[in-house]
Amino acid sequence: MYISSLNNEKVKYWEKLKVKKYRDREKLFLIESTHLVMEALNLGILKEIITTEEKEYAVPTYQVSMSIMKKLSSQTSSTKIIGVAKLLEEKEIEGNILLLDNLQDPGNLGCIIRSACAFNFKTIILSNTCVDLYNPKVIRATEGMLFHVNIIRGNLLDIIKNLSKDYLLVTTDVCNGKDIKTLKYKNIAIVIGNEGSGVSEEVSSLCQEKVNIKMTNVCESLNASVSASILMYEVYHE
Amino acid sequence: MYISSLNNEKVKYWEKLKVKKYRDREKLFLIESTHLVMEALNLGILKEIITTEEKEYAVPTYQVSMSIMKKLSSQTSSTKIIGVAKLLEEKEIEGNILLLDNLQDPGNLGCIIRSACAFNFKTIILSNTCVDLYNPKVIRATEGMLFHVNIIRGNLLDIIKNLSKDYLLVTTDVCNGKDIKTLKYKNIAIVIGNEGSGVSEEVSSLCQEKVNIKMTNVCESLNASVSASILMYEVYHE
Repeated sequence: MYISSLNNEKVKYWEKLKVKKYRDREKLFLIESTHLVMEALNLGILKEIITTEEKEYAVPTYQVSMSIMKKLSSQTSSTKIIGVAKLLEEKEIEGNILLLDNLQDPGNLGCIIRSACAFNFKTIILSNTCVDLYNPKVIRATEGMLFHVNIIRGNLLDIIKNLSKDYLLVTTDVCNGKDIKTLKYKNIAIVIGNEGSGVSEEVSSLCQEKVNIKMTNVCESLNASVSASILMYEVYHE
Repeated sequence: MYISSLNNEKVKYWEKLKVKKYRDREKLFLIESTHLVMEALNLGILKEIITTEEKEYAVPTYQVSMSIMKKLSSQTSSTKIIGVAKLLEEKEIEGNILLLDNLQDPGNLGCIIRSACAFNFKTIILSNTCVDLYNPKVIRATEGMLFHVNIIRGNLLDIIKNLSKDYLLVTTDVCNGKDIKTLKYKNIAIVIGNEGSGVSEEVSSLCQEKVNIKMTNVCESLNASVSASILMYEVYHE
């Protein structure tokens, strides 16, 4: 089916999926770039495909004009294909866990998801206040890795209370934390905080261990995704 | 001095500094956020200050209207102060070095500069093809650390040829590199490549060692700023 009108109902519907509220309501999100769309297709989570090319895929495919594509895409460079995907299923918590307390930068979240995959953290838990997982910048920064980690969103305090009997809960403390290299881990749950204000006091008080990454005293702190990645790296390489 | 007209010559001049070409020509760049402006002021690299508030600083200060500030600022949130700073001086190469080959993402560059400070890499060398150091997104992501590292821009091949007698040149190779943990270092120069294509073949062939960061086989690679940070972290903690 070919669509050229920007006023087409289907186009208007897809465009709404650029907004979190509609993604949550429709339980759908948009994926850009051929690589990611093909991966989502193989995983069976695509509902339909929107493309500027005359191609058919295993799901309903809509050929659209360049101007429609431009309207739907979040990127300035020309996108050729967008997948309409079902929101990812939240599974049971397993393996090492990374918890994110009010993380706001979409690039950071995407980058952390990518590192979690690299360092075998099987579950990521986002506080309700975190940036939306389905923000296009998040998805792009994951480089496809969002399909390979179990990502759960919820009330962090409630979740942490339930975790504490099975997991060692660890967070960062640049002033008083132990050197990350001195700890021994199994079943670890690491909490990373907001880019500006760190982990909230309430959450921090529920953590059994505080660690830090030793650094020169010129620098006060690392970027949140770098901190998270180094901590996961150390646990993976322990 | 109070300026309210968007057509004021001074305003037009400052606005041009948002573009790399003019920054290079005038040897000036804009710094946003109080924290960074004050740091630049203390370091004596500020030429003038632009502010919406009725304040005077130790350098010529211009009070401007909100609409002028909005025009000059690169941020959507309301900025109150902008510093007009001299481009940073390039100093002699010293200490451990990070070389960046065609790094494009401003957030990555800023984040790497911050990590370099944290892990005592005293010199960063940017290839001529890298994103501009004075891009506002780079400056913001450094969190002020750009004032504390010696940053040089130049022809990477020429620079590497000169470094090779004094430094161990190391780059990443996800397939064939040695585990970073197995190497012993002093006087190290690490080369990190472009986000998509990695280190160019020519540059890579000049490196004496290839290392990798061990990870699961689900994930092919890490974000460039995460890779760079983990490598610097390992060298610092060795």
